[in-house]
Amino acid sequence: MASIENIRHTLAHLLAAAVQGAHPGAKLTLGPAIETGFYYDIDFGDEKIADDGLKKLEKQMRKLLPSWKEFSHREVSKDEALQIFAGNPYKTELIEEIAGRGEAITLYTCGNFTDLCRGGHAEHPSEEIASDSFALDRVAGAYWRGDEKNPMLTRIYGLAFESKDALDAYLAQREEAKKRDHRKLGAEMDLFLTSELVGQGLPLWTPRGTLFRHTLDAYVWELREKHGYQRVTIPHLTKKDLYEKSGHWSKFSDELFRITTREGKEYAVKPMNCPHHTQIFDRKPHSYREMPQRYAETTMVYRDEQSGELGGLTRVLSITQDDSHVFCRMNQVRDEFFKIWDIVDTFYGSFGFTLRVRLSFHDPAEMEKYLGSPEIWKNAEDALRSIAEERKADYFEAPGEAAMYGPKLDFMATDSMGRQHQVATIQLDMNQPERFDLTCINEKGEKERIVMIHCAIMGSIERFSAVLIEHLAGVFPLWLAPVQVQVLPISEKHAAYADAVVAELKQKGLRAELSEATESLGKRVRAAKLAKVPAFIVVGDAEVDNQTVTVENNRTGDKATVPLADFISGALERIKERANV
Amino acid sequence: MASIENIRHTLAHLLAAAVQGAHPGAKLTLGPAIETGFYYDIDFGDEKIADDGLKKLEKQMRKLLPSWKEFSHREVSKDEALQIFAGNPYKTELIEEIAGRGEAITLYTCGNFTDLCRGGHAEHPSEEIASDSFALDRVAGAYWRGDEKNPMLTRIYGLAFESKDALDAYLAQREEAKKRDHRKLGAEMDLFLTSELVGQGLPLWTPRGTLFRHTLDAYVWELREKHGYQRVTIPHLTKKDLYEKSGHWSKFSDELFRITTREGKEYAVKPMNCPHHTQIFDRKPHSYREMPQRYAETTMVYRDEQSGELGGLTRVLSITQDDSHVFCRMNQVRDEFFKIWDIVDTFYGSFGFTLRVRLSFHDPAEMEKYLGSPEIWKNAEDALRSIAEERKADYFEAPGEAAMYGPKLDFMATDSMGRQHQVATIQLDMNQPERFDLTCINEKGEKERIVMIHCAIMGSIERFSAVLIEHLAGVFPLWLAPVQVQVLPISEKHAAYADAVVAELKQKGLRAELSEATESLGKRVRAAKLAKVPAFIVVGDAEVDNQTVTVENNRTGDKATVPLADFISGALERIKERANV
Repeated sequence: MASIENIRHTLAHLLAAAVQGAHPGAKLTLGPAIETGFYYDIDFGDEKIADDGLKKLEKQMRKLLPSWKEFSHREVSKDEALQIFAGNPYKTELIEEIAGRGEAITLYTCGNFTDLCRGGHAEHPSEEIASDSFALDRVAGAYWRGDEKNPMLTRIYGLAFESKDALDAYLAQREEAKKRDHRKLGAEMDLFLTSELVGQGLPLWTPRGTLFRHTLDAYVWELREKHGYQRVTIPHLTKKDLYEKSGHWSKFSDELFRITTREGKEYAVKPMNCPHHTQIFDRKPHSYREMPQRYAETTMVYRDEQSGELGGLTRVLSITQDDSHVFCRMNQVRDEFFKIWDIVDTFYGSFGFTLRVRLSFHDPAEMEKYLGSPEIWKNAEDALRSIAEERKADYFEAPGEAAMYGPKLDFMATDSMGRQHQVATIQLDMNQPERFDLTCINEKGEKERIVMIHCAIMGSIERFSAVLIEHLAGVFPLWLAPVQVQVLPISEKHAAYADAVVAELKQKGLRAELSEATESLGKRVRAAKLAKVPAFIVVGDAEVDNQTVTVENNRTGDKATVPLADFISGALERIKERANV
Repeated sequence: MASIENIRHTLAHLLAAAVQGAHPGAKLTLGPAIETGFYYDIDFGDEKIADDGLKKLEKQMRKLLPSWKEFSHREVSKDEALQIFAGNPYKTELIEEIAGRGEAITLYTCGNFTDLCRGGHAEHPSEEIASDSFALDRVAGAYWRGDEKNPMLTRIYGLAFESKDALDAYLAQREEAKKRDHRKLGAEMDLFLTSELVGQGLPLWTPRGTLFRHTLDAYVWELREKHGYQRVTIPHLTKKDLYEKSGHWSKFSDELFRITTREGKEYAVKPMNCPHHTQIFDRKPHSYREMPQRYAETTMVYRDEQSGELGGLTRVLSITQDDSHVFCRMNQVRDEFFKIWDIVDTFYGSFGFTLRVRLSFHDPAEMEKYLGSPEIWKNAEDALRSIAEERKADYFEAPGEAAMYGPKLDFMATDSMGRQHQVATIQLDMNQPERFDLTCINEKGEKERIVMIHCAIMGSIERFSAVLIEHLAGVFPLWLAPVQVQVLPISEKHAAYADAVVAELKQKGLRAELSEATESLGKRVRAAKLAKVPAFIVVGDAEVDNQTVTVENNRTGDKATVPLADFISGALERIKERANV
């Protein structure tokens, strides 16, 4: 059987054949396989392809498929190729390039359709491709070869999977992901916003969103504090000098927001916190007895991303890192990594994520991208590998994924929809301690070079928030929800009891809100569900009479009528345990 | 009797006379009275004036004083004046200017000394000035007329008060202030630092300093939360558009840190938070039932100050404001002001500050400095005055001290050395709601213009920290100290008991530290005093035998030997009450 990549590539040909039949004037360009299917970029001239056009092409593909028995190919001369594709400037350009590189020019034919191609197909499409395993998806604009100076083409995207079931599963997951889109839920839950005046990529957080952020951050801090971390505070600006010394000024260059002051001095807005933290460590000599020093700080860093890359919370200019730097001796690295790993396991476990570990190593072929010598890199990477081994972690190595100053141990979380996200990261750094000449005084009274461990548990609060909102479809665990309980009296005559319930909940430390009976109960229940309040309480005649509450869990849909005191003690218990549901 | 200003001005003449006698080649320029005395700027050519030179001049002033019976003055023509001061280019320049303005040129004479002057002296210096009420203080460099393109002159500073007692009191206070200098104490207490690489005016906060900042901020938040404030979160950057709309782009222009992105867009680092907060308020319509909305955020703002103005924590580029904005209806202003005023009274009362109130109003002669119409200003200032009246506050009015968008109610705190500091501020703003078109939906279902109240309780954490450190000479109240208790075993044999004491203190939630018996007790006590730990415990044989602790209060010097449990319960009580000592 053909690989799914080859099937997808074959379908791009099939799409092109359908287009050529229906739109003889259209000029074909390039059509590769992609992660979920394929696309083909086509110059339709002035013609626009609408949804029904897409449907027709898809139908035509299915009609052609049975006649696509087998691929054949042949090598042709440049002149022959140019003659065949005369009148198509895109193919002409491609032919000239292939010939220019001295490569063979090959044509692939299946059914009645021939295309300039390097091969890689399902050899017998009619046998190997199920006609219900693919679908045309959507149309987008794309510049020829991705260059905005070139003509705009029409890109037709297709989806293709191993089977109809796999295609349906993908469509269902995509539909679910759309419902859970953190930008949509973030607005409905009133967590954050963007303002045209402030700008894209610079989200503003509402009272509810800020409570959510602070609660997450307080949890990370609670886990860190147990391990001897201490908080520090730095400004967001620095003189150029700091980044010249750290090496970021040249290596980070494009992404730095630079400032020239009224006196002509050069400053930057910090893109990371480590160089500042070295200055705090270096304020005085440290005895080996005082090592490790563990600094934590949740603070915003800023990176000048291109505006096309900005969207929701996943790509922002203002990145809140829950950052930490451990300054320690080489023989303390293993213990410190294990402590952090424990924090990561606890934190992500609380939300039901499963974790894999990626050892992000340097690419020896591109040493110019990194600070430090090959020896320093080898030592650091060996140390990380043996830590992962000792921890018996589910890990894999990824050369070329390191930070510029050292290798990383990246955690990949799988969410409730099966998607994988890069989340926490632990990084071993032997380079910055060299650059900043960081030492401790060892048992012999001598200066000893130390190392740094960089770690962010959430990574960035913005990105983690996006992942978490979509993972949980917005219904946070009780301990984390900005509004934990909403109380809905059925009608005005239950208002007094509802008020008493809210007062009692608040008095016990729960974040409770009243939803007054100014609208129908159904409408208010829908609003509570939309706001993703994890628990809501309905009170009517029966509840007033029996001094009970009827509680619905907004995640599981479970309902129960219980005495108020029972609900409160259960809720407080779940908050204390940081229970996920 | 002459006013102290006239006495100080007279002493500037007397200094000039002494200089002319001792240094005939020196060229006199200008010599005014200042807050604590007077100075005279003099061109000594290549000659340097050292400390003993100052002593000689002071002696000579005292010698001349009895002969300074009475001032006389006469008006002279420009030509005559130029002839008298021929060879002195500074006086020549002044004469040309006075004549250019068409003003009279007057010479004042006393003793054998004549100076170009406008008058304002003690008419009979020998009778009106006590010869022990003044002293020459120090020498500094100063450019002619403050312009660095001009020659550098020698500025001789003198101190002068009503009497010797007043002079001595000032000198004693200055000596005390020097001992309490927050830059000196901040380093000894290991609270903050500056780094040459990061830059002046950008302090970095150590673990102890950060704990101190967070504890202060948590106190403010606790007071605010009771009054219904909610926290919000904004980024430190914004597109230019926000400040064009708010009016800051032009009015705040020089002090803005500006950024041009890689795509050529214009951003600024925020110099204040209000425009961002308006965007959060404006994310959705608000019913009158939801008003007021009270947003609080402790966040850094950045202002491009000239580097000559930067020093310690009193003038920084990175200013942490404990900022808040109340969005409310006009008829809610009084209540909201009162709530804030209560917070201010509680907060400053905790530290033993006494407060005066300054009503900072606009200057009608300079309307171009402000946003908004004279009517809006009158309404706002009338409202503030009546609030101050109703509160029966000790207040005074200060025209010209308003913010650009509205009048302020500024609190002036008097510290333990009798110095006055501007601290908290409450500002009524009717202009930004206009600019951003902020409204609520009132009882009639109509849009109603709202107002904003800006308030920072500490003002800036940096400046308040400096004031507080100097006010308390570094010895913070127990609840605020980063290290609350230090435990000092007299010798190694008391180590086990000391460890147990530290463990018990920590277990009860106190921030305790052990000072191991590796050095003499005296040395360790001195270190604890230097670090300004508010309470330290010494344990020796008697304490081990009786299971007690000997505690010394580092502020009052009080000592007592008590059971450990008694110390702990007392300490926890004082922390809970936020007792000042």
